[in-house]
Amino acid sequence: MDFSYALDDLIELLGPKKTIGSSSVPVSRINTLSNAKPGDVSFLGNLKYKRDVSSTEASVVLLPMDFDAHPRDGQCFMFFDNSSFALGILCRDIEMKCCPRRKPGIHRTAVVDETASVGSGVSIGANVVVEGNVAIGSGVVIMAGCYVGHGVKIGANSVLQPGVKVMDFCEIGARVTLFPGVVVGSDGFGYETVNGIHEKIPQVGNVVIGDDVDIGANSTIDRARFGHTNIGRGTKIDNLVQIGHNVSVGDGCLIVSQTGISGSTTIGNYVIIGGQVGIAGHISIPDGIMIAGKSSVPGYKKRDGEILRGSPTMPLKEANHFYVLRTKIPDLFKRVAALEKILGVE
Amino acid sequence: MDFSYALDDLIELLGPKKTIGSSSVPVSRINTLSNAKPGDVSFLGNLKYKRDVSSTEASVVLLPMDFDAHPRDGQCFMFFDNSSFALGILCRDIEMKCCPRRKPGIHRTAVVDETASVGSGVSIGANVVVEGNVAIGSGVVIMAGCYVGHGVKIGANSVLQPGVKVMDFCEIGARVTLFPGVVVGSDGFGYETVNGIHEKIPQVGNVVIGDDVDIGANSTIDRARFGHTNIGRGTKIDNLVQIGHNVSVGDGCLIVSQTGISGSTTIGNYVIIGGQVGIAGHISIPDGIMIAGKSSVPGYKKRDGEILRGSPTMPLKEANHFYVLRTKIPDLFKRVAALEKILGVE
Amino acid sequence: MDFSYALDDLIELLGPKKTIGSSSVPVSRINTLSNAKPGDVSFLGNLKYKRDVSSTEASVVLLPMDFDAHPRDGQCFMFFDNSSFALGILCRDIEMKCCPRRKPGIHRTAVVDETASVGSGVSIGANVVVEGNVAIGSGVVIMAGCYVGHGVKIGANSVLQPGVKVMDFCEIGARVTLFPGVVVGSDGFGYETVNGIHEKIPQVGNVVIGDDVDIGANSTIDRARFGHTNIGRGTKIDNLVQIGHNVSVGDGCLIVSQTGISGSTTIGNYVIIGGQVGIAGHISIPDGIMIAGKSSVPGYKKRDGEILRGSPTMPLKEANHFYVLRTKIPDLFKRVAALEKILGVE
Repeated sequence: MDFSYALDDLIELLGPKKTIGSSSVPVSRINTLSNAKPGDVSFLGNLKYKRDVSSTEASVVLLPMDFDAHPRDGQCFMFFDNSSFALGILCRDIEMKCCPRRKPGIHRTAVVDETASVGSGVSIGANVVVEGNVAIGSGVVIMAGCYVGHGVKIGANSVLQPGVKVMDFCEIGARVTLFPGVVVGSDGFGYETVNGIHEKIPQVGNVVIGDDVDIGANSTIDRARFGHTNIGRGTKIDNLVQIGHNVSVGDGCLIVSQTGISGSTTIGNYVIIGGQVGIAGHISIPDGIMIAGKSSVPGYKKRDGEILRGSPTMPLKEANHFYVLRTKIPDLFKRVAALEKILGVE
Repeated sequence: MDFSYALDDLIELLGPKKTIGSSSVPVSRINTLSNAKPGDVSFLGNLKYKRDVSSTEASVVLLPMDFDAHPRDGQCFMFFDNSSFALGILCRDIEMKCCPRRKPGIHRTAVVDETASVGSGVSIGANVVVEGNVAIGSGVVIMAGCYVGHGVKIGANSVLQPGVKVMDFCEIGARVTLFPGVVVGSDGFGYETVNGIHEKIPQVGNVVIGDDVDIGANSTIDRARFGHTNIGRGTKIDNLVQIGHNVSVGDGCLIVSQTGISGSTTIGNYVIIGGQVGIAGHISIPDGIMIAGKSSVPGYKKRDGEILRGSPTMPLKEANHFYVLRTKIPDLFKRVAALEKILGVE
Repeated sequence: MDFSYALDDLIELLGPKKTIGSSSVPVSRINTLSNAKPGDVSFLGNLKYKRDVSSTEASVVLLPMDFDAHPRDGQCFMFFDNSSFALGILCRDIEMKCCPRRKPGIHRTAVVDETASVGSGVSIGANVVVEGNVAIGSGVVIMAGCYVGHGVKIGANSVLQPGVKVMDFCEIGARVTLFPGVVVGSDGFGYETVNGIHEKIPQVGNVVIGDDVDIGANSTIDRARFGHTNIGRGTKIDNLVQIGHNVSVGDGCLIVSQTGISGSTTIGNYVIIGGQVGIAGHISIPDGIMIAGKSSVPGYKKRDGEILRGSPTMPLKEANHFYVLRTKIPDLFKRVAALEKILGVE
């Protein structure tokens, strides 16, 4: 994506609280502090990299307000309450300028059932299939090769990226993005074993996704056995995540890649779940809990506190302590053997 | 999915062993015991929820035969040998009534090679691609956007949901369901490193899937290096599962989401594998073993017993004991230090 | 895949360093040592199976040079520096003979933008969508239902198997294979929480994939927030793997199924990563490191050595020792209690 910003344009776009220094070179690339060259804009988002600020060759650096730093000749430092978000504003502007927009209209190769209702300004791409009684809100973009099942509802300005499948009767809110290959509303994993046969329990519920939700590539959200699998508004889900049937995820949650949540579990609001976490079925996780990556969560008790870690999970402090002691266990065995020797125990 | 059942119709459909009480309100929704309102049917499938039976407002409740409970006025309790399966029968009936059926025929946008043999009553959806020498049994449904490679065989009444890919020469049994995005017969991960180059070993085997198998959304089943990767009849596989090349899974297994089975491993019959389990390659798991979620299984020895848990796995009792002791290890270090002090050990 | 090789043809194809014995039956199947019958070719690739060599019924057996074995009547043993690679040569020959080739040309149902540049001998399958300003090198095969976004570049002789999605501006090297359902260049998981809203940071970088890379079915490689997510040349990635934004994977790595690498992490050259491994973000793994399956890697320190194992990881020896001691911890508690009793500690 090719772009170029003169310093004044950048200041106007980002509105820094303070600037120090000046650069006459227009910036045409974003780079990390350590890799940046003149003509690049860089930023300090993670304090881990703070040492790189003084040595960076970037022409423009976006910094947090309270960060003490002075530019060299030809450099401009800009200060913000939230320097990562300032970078975000720049990225959004680049995206607006460089990314191809999808034109409204229905591609000639799309197969749209005549009973589907299609709002104004909708873009339906090549080879999309839209079944009967679907309702598509205004401004929705459905990219190439998507499948939209019977009776599905899609709220205004949502985007289905290529190859998304939304199965019968599911409901998608407004401004939702489903990334490529996402499956919404596949059957939950429900069987009842009768005389050695795993008899399928038909899954006659659906999935209801709130407004402003993102779901990452190739993630799968199962339809409910009955009633709804719910994803609350503003929740963001990464790639290759599995959400089981009848799960209820609250608002504003962040769920990192390859995590799995088993059936009928309830996740509160603003819960943050690291990557590759496994959460048992039929349990409840309260609002605001954080779960470290790779944890397995059999349940939640008050004494677990706000941050969980481990497999199965412990309160964070306990987990961290255990992982330190773990390396000293061989020595502990030796210490006990020494005591036994002193006391003549065999 | 909209439905409504008068009490008599429900009794006729489900055939309870016993009923107590009566309800005049037709039921038009399934709900959990705690969320149910008048007009809802509910059920006790998991004893965890048994306390909710006495307070539920459901008009009809499906219960196990031996469960001691009495309905309030206007409620009907129905008793079954298997109340979950009774719910399953109801769900199947709702599904039959409400779900759109796929009409037999080949959609005008499908690309079906002239050498493919297509059985009676087959439904091939929009944008499906069927390559040469494919054999499709009667009653098969291939939904929108599926890809069926050269020489593939699909048994009668199987269903390929949208976006499934079945690669060359694979064989699918009868009454199999492949959920959206499933990949059957992608190449196994086989390389031989020669002079620093990972040379690909072509994978010239296939995948053979037995009758009555289900495979969940976006799961991947790799083709064999030579011979077959086998999935036994009646086995049910959840979403995002990986089955490596030359794996043999027995009959009637249940494999929960995000589990991975490495190449050339043999899984017996009726093995139950929890979510996010990892199983090493070139090992053998006997019939009837259960493996707890998140376990990693390096191998199986007789003393491991019937239920395995942990990473790497231990017999269940040992694992449970270890997880309890794990929280007492900090204290054990203190106890040993105290003993050392008494004995003057530094 | 049907094939048949007379003994002389096999010797000419594989060029063994030495042969002992002879077989007059042409071979028409590959099989494991223990399952092989007359008419089969088998091989010893993994020493775990060495006992099966003396009892195998295979007509031809491929063996390592230094392996001491003598055929029975009617058997031919062939010896190679690398018997697995010899099998690979045979498999490649079978594949060449039996696998349907994709014909050059653009299928009538493909939707290829007029600004796309398509090299010589390219095969574009049914229902493929190619957006504007795409550059496709000579000999590339794009199979049914793939999506190729704006400005994408694909190097010569690469293969996109069915249902692959390559998003805008990503760059694919030469001789790359993307297996079915792979997503390259979906947005990285980047949000900045402002007043309780997870504001999306647009991801304006891309993915750059080197020559000779393979990426397994349904794996997802995220585009960079800015700059590039890099996959080095000759690296092979298995199914259902997640690579986060701005990750840099070196050359010649092997990454097994269901592993996840978090954002901005750097992986050196010839790193081998087992299945279901999780690697933290913003860390660096040196060249040549091996990481055992199911590990979680919070960071890398020199004392970790060359092989890591565990969750979180330890040096291999420590991890193995810990897993042995783990089973003796219940006994350690008893031993400490016995010492306390002797010393009158309560």
